[in-house]
Amino acid sequence: MSSFEEKTLAKETIYNGRIIDLEVHTVSLPNGKESTRELVFHPGAVAVLAITDDDKIVTVRQYRKALKKEVVEIPAGKLEPNEDPLLCAKRELEEETGIIASTWSKLHSFYTSPGFADELVHVYLAEDLQEGSVNLDEDEFVSREDYTLDESKSLIDSLDIHDAKTIYAILMWELRKLKGQA
Amino acid sequence: MSSFEEKTLAKETIYNGRIIDLEVHTVSLPNGKESTRELVFHPGAVAVLAITDDDKIVTVRQYRKALKKEVVEIPAGKLEPNEDPLLCAKRELEEETGIIASTWSKLHSFYTSPGFADELVHVYLAEDLQEGSVNLDEDEFVSREDYTLDESKSLIDSLDIHDAKTIYAILMWELRKLKGQA
Repeated sequence: MSSFEEKTLAKETIYNGRIIDLEVHTVSLPNGKESTRELVFHPGAVAVLAITDDDKIVTVRQYRKALKKEVVEIPAGKLEPNEDPLLCAKRELEEETGIIASTWSKLHSFYTSPGFADELVHVYLAEDLQEGSVNLDEDEFVSREDYTLDESKSLIDSLDIHDAKTIYAILMWELRKLKGQA
Repeated sequence: MSSFEEKTLAKETIYNGRIIDLEVHTVSLPNGKESTRELVFHPGAVAVLAITDDDKIVTVRQYRKALKKEVVEIPAGKLEPNEDPLLCAKRELEEETGIIASTWSKLHSFYTSPGFADELVHVYLAEDLQEGSVNLDEDEFVSREDYTLDESKSLIDSLDIHDAKTIYAILMWELRKLKGQA
């Protein structure tokens, strides 16, 4: 199969922010024509499917300015420069929920919005949880809420859970149960 | 529980693009302090889990400039202004793969990157497929590839499938099979 690669002919840096950068690239298409691509660059992130000893998923409720509403998500956070994703996952879980987990395994990594952004989210499963103390960033306001599988599925129906990584995590959890892995 | 709402005190429009807009908002936090939020606004999108009569998932291989690589995704596309998501899903599936499906059902909608973007993806299940003719946008280059469940899981392992909506769709497909729904 021929390559569909789009080579950058010119690029304009629109914005370098605290979290994201925006560039507009003029690219050559496989048919020789030109087009533009609006590209958001992001440092990447981690998310954690943490399951308690009484078989509940650990979530955090928080306000998301982009969505103009409060939502319930699995614990997550951005990677610091050169940070190992697993160490970041352990740090974010503890900061947001106080939990220290002794068993960790990688589930998947995925790009969230491949059409315009390079944000890559690494998702981990955390088990054998111990309670510690919450330590939020100074501009972070979240409250921990633990839910059963049925409760979390109801929260998807009510749109309280409304983001890709959390719905993915709940499907993984249900799939593992059905396969006898959880 | 108290509200975590972040009110906008000031906003700066950084960019109004063909696909995305970027604004930076100065917001008031629940503790009275201020912070900034970098916000990407997107028209929203649809994606389709289409299953063939011989039990394969329909995908398209395409180059994603943001990821600097070719990936395999379920058919998807952006909503036109005021477009009904189901009609958009039917249009995108036919444009990218030539397929006309006679049975449609809604799976989930989810925000892809709630930390910085309002992109909402509506995912549909399409069954009872008929072959028609492909009709791509002029700057769109994709090739259709159909895979079994096992093949699609291998493509996740090899990172050919590497985005949230496609991994979600494959989990949904496997879950439906295990529950006897597919």
